[in-house]
Amino acid sequence: MAGHVQLIEARIAQWCEALPPGDLYAPMAYLLRLPGKRVRPALVLMGCELFGGRAEDALDEALGIELFHNFTLMHDDIMDASPLRRGEPTVHVKWDANTAILSGDAMLVKAYQLMGKSPDVFRIFGRYALEVCEGQQLDMEFERRDEVHVEEYVAMIRRKTAVLLNSSLQIGATIGGANVQDRERLGSFGEHMGLAFQLRDDLLDAFGDPTKTGKQKGGDLRNGKKTFLLIRGLERAAEVRSSVLREELAKPSEERDVRRMIEAIDQLGVRAEAEAEIATHDRAAHLELDAIGLEDARKEPLRTLAERLLDRAH
Amino acid sequence: MAGHVQLIEARIAQWCEALPPGDLYAPMAYLLRLPGKRVRPALVLMGCELFGGRAEDALDEALGIELFHNFTLMHDDIMDASPLRRGEPTVHVKWDANTAILSGDAMLVKAYQLMGKSPDVFRIFGRYALEVCEGQQLDMEFERRDEVHVEEYVAMIRRKTAVLLNSSLQIGATIGGANVQDRERLGSFGEHMGLAFQLRDDLLDAFGDPTKTGKQKGGDLRNGKKTFLLIRGLERAAEVRSSVLREELAKPSEERDVRRMIEAIDQLGVRAEAEAEIATHDRAAHLELDAIGLEDARKEPLRTLAERLLDRAH
Repeated sequence: MAGHVQLIEARIAQWCEALPPGDLYAPMAYLLRLPGKRVRPALVLMGCELFGGRAEDALDEALGIELFHNFTLMHDDIMDASPLRRGEPTVHVKWDANTAILSGDAMLVKAYQLMGKSPDVFRIFGRYALEVCEGQQLDMEFERRDEVHVEEYVAMIRRKTAVLLNSSLQIGATIGGANVQDRERLGSFGEHMGLAFQLRDDLLDAFGDPTKTGKQKGGDLRNGKKTFLLIRGLERAAEVRSSVLREELAKPSEERDVRRMIEAIDQLGVRAEAEAEIATHDRAAHLELDAIGLEDARKEPLRTLAERLLDRAH
Repeated sequence: MAGHVQLIEARIAQWCEALPPGDLYAPMAYLLRLPGKRVRPALVLMGCELFGGRAEDALDEALGIELFHNFTLMHDDIMDASPLRRGEPTVHVKWDANTAILSGDAMLVKAYQLMGKSPDVFRIFGRYALEVCEGQQLDMEFERRDEVHVEEYVAMIRRKTAVLLNSSLQIGATIGGANVQDRERLGSFGEHMGLAFQLRDDLLDAFGDPTKTGKQKGGDLRNGKKTFLLIRGLERAAEVRSSVLREELAKPSEERDVRRMIEAIDQLGVRAEAEAEIATHDRAAHLELDAIGLEDARKEPLRTLAERLLDRAH
């Protein structure tokens, strides 16, 4: 993936350089230049190469996917009132909310302009772009609701996170010349990986090493954020009549005993359950990859990436 | 145009009916169902018919243009903090700003989904979509600036208003089978018409009949809004050393003598200048239409529409 990231960084740098001056475009360059893992555009290139295409031929679409991802970050940060993104002020803080709304809109248009070469790419992109919006809408709705079922939560993270990995791979596969069946299998591999990735993220909040994650341990729990751990924790607690989580949630967030919450979640078996879920998606992802009729060596880069994403400690 | 509007209204109603439930989609239907003139989608259909196409074949793209226009209204209303749209609460007031941001984003994606049938349509739409964002950005920037030159103002309204009429006609013309030269001529006709229309709008604020416009006379002047009248008024006042406008602008808006401002603008020759500008764009528009190699009868509906738009009293 390192070579891919280099290609992508060069393309992003070149694109930012060529932007006209002014407050419509400056926030795009600002956000794109914050260091990121560039997983989604790398998946576009890898999806293309898997089927024998050249990474260079998918660079426009890879950039388009990264623009789309950054458009969602710009708008989500307004909606979530997040002051920081990757340790730097968010666009609506550094400029203002109006600038972030409008620059995000224009960034979505810019993303689309890179998706017009193939009708299939255009269709895949549009379908998933809409699902990402639906995911964000569910996420906001869940915050306001008292109760969220775990199936609803999974449906939300599927849309909000997993489908963009799916579409990145499918777009790359399309450019690489894959047939529809193989393309969809590869997309499904990405979607399972995305779900596993998000669940790993949820787990790391409570059980990760803060020196590696760079985040406060149990920050999501302190904020009462409805992640897999809290949602399943509350469901399990109701079954066994444990009141620990309810008690802590009833307190103001600064008074919550986060260690006690983490212990309860562990004892309720939710940590193990999340690990099992991750393993299930991991297996499902690899089965999809197995089913694609190509020699195994070609699939190695994707397997390595999946491993890195899922076994990460941060 | 009446038949076109009927076709469009039916398509909009059908589209709204088919939307999934939930707060992502409900604001789209709410905004689309507010009564509107549907000028832009009608132009798509008229552009198509001018070159011998059937209106029905351009209905998807006409709907796409109306979705795009409503997406810009939804986001502009947040940015301008407007409480009302066509006499009803704006989306960010009826729901909230986050819902308006996200529903607008999804509406832009939905608009794009209707623009994928032809690569030419896709390209025209994308280019103009970006210019509309640039126009809104300039509009917001001008509000913060002390001085705006009239050329800058015209460049702003060109992007913010006129290019969408241009692209509506060009998209219709493309579907109708026009050659590139005729298509661009028709687009240019729309752009001149759009500029004239906006200048007429500026004039009506000060010199229209409030019983017909339904707006407070001189509302823009009271708010110090930088329209053609105020920008050119201040330029002309500096030339002839008239201090009326400066004096009034120095007062708090509720104490401004709007009648005195209107009188000054008239005496400075700015009313006549705006009328002359409108006439120039009107002539230019018709010259473009003349140059299209089709029999005159086919062009009649567009000439009638232009007349209605420019000679309107409200």
